[in-house]
Amino acid sequence: MDLREVILNQFGPIEQSQLDNFIKLWSAPITVKRNERLIRYQETENHVYFIEKGTCCITYPDINEDIVVGFGYPNTFLFSPSIINNKPTEQEVIIIKQSNVRSLHKRYFFEFINHHLEVQKKWQRQIELLLVAQIDRQIDLLISSPEERLKRLLIRSPHVFQLIPKKYIASYLRMTPETLSRIQKP
Amino acid sequence: MDLREVILNQFGPIEQSQLDNFIKLWSAPITVKRNERLIRYQETENHVYFIEKGTCCITYPDINEDIVVGFGYPNTFLFSPSIINNKPTEQEVIIIKQSNVRSLHKRYFFEFINHHLEVQKKWQRQIELLLVAQIDRQIDLLISSPEERLKRLLIRSPHVFQLIPKKYIASYLRMTPETLSRIQKP
Repeated sequence: MDLREVILNQFGPIEQSQLDNFIKLWSAPITVKRNERLIRYQETENHVYFIEKGTCCITYPDINEDIVVGFGYPNTFLFSPSIINNKPTEQEVIIIKQSNVRSLHKRYFFEFINHHLEVQKKWQRQIELLLVAQIDRQIDLLISSPEERLKRLLIRSPHVFQLIPKKYIASYLRMTPETLSRIQKP
Repeated sequence: MDLREVILNQFGPIEQSQLDNFIKLWSAPITVKRNERLIRYQETENHVYFIEKGTCCITYPDINEDIVVGFGYPNTFLFSPSIINNKPTEQEVIIIKQSNVRSLHKRYFFEFINHHLEVQKKWQRQIELLLVAQIDRQIDLLISSPEERLKRLLIRSPHVFQLIPKKYIASYLRMTPETLSRIQKP
């Protein structure tokens, strides 16, 4: 899979020449090393990202620790809330595994989205599903049982356990790595 | 304000006759009493609601308590995640103050939304902003300082303190009503 195929999968069908023109607007891949910040706390991010290779986590920097609130995987887009509300982001994106990342200014991204009704409808559908996922995630955070929180993640995102080291998953699940190991056993 | 004005505000301009036809599809207002459930846990909700009068809270029923995750106010729409993903909802909507509520089957709602490009774009924008609000809310839940959680709510939704009794706000902020009273003082 590459950027072209992912765009076609998520927003297609799209005419060949239009897709070519859109892909040309994206930056060449840049390499971002482990532990580097791709998006920094309190910055107003103007770009959307495409992760060609590697993984990252989205964190909220609380007083005493970075709390993991989400993950980025190969062959997926990464959007900061900034590109929607034009405000400084409250999150950071930290590289977990060395990544190749392409970027595009949001102006070009939204011009593409809004140019064709079918692409726009697919974007709308994705935003709707992301909204539902965020509501699910809110419930995750409120559930008092660690076992139940783990069970929900296993159902929703089984791939996370193949791609992301356990300490980040534990933070995402609001438990210690030791608790996660213990309840994963049976 | 009434249903007509709220639709015009949020989705307008809309041609008079089209708006008339759309409003006719909504049910007459029904009265729902305090503590009654408007939407029940594990039901797949097929309707969108408009709150003409009254207030409600959206709760997640955890093992030991109902946890408040949101509120509904007069002259606003109420959407269950069910209408997007067609799955049973994990939330309940409980009336706080006796309400007059109108309902519409989601089929008519989405036909209206998708009929005109301008209305659809306004819906898309609202969904995008709701998504950002949910991301903010996720961060709310992760912040360890109760004072900071209160401060964020005061900035985001000052009206909540006029409309909603303190015990529900305390649950929403993940603190006891006593803690909320104490930190509201200074």
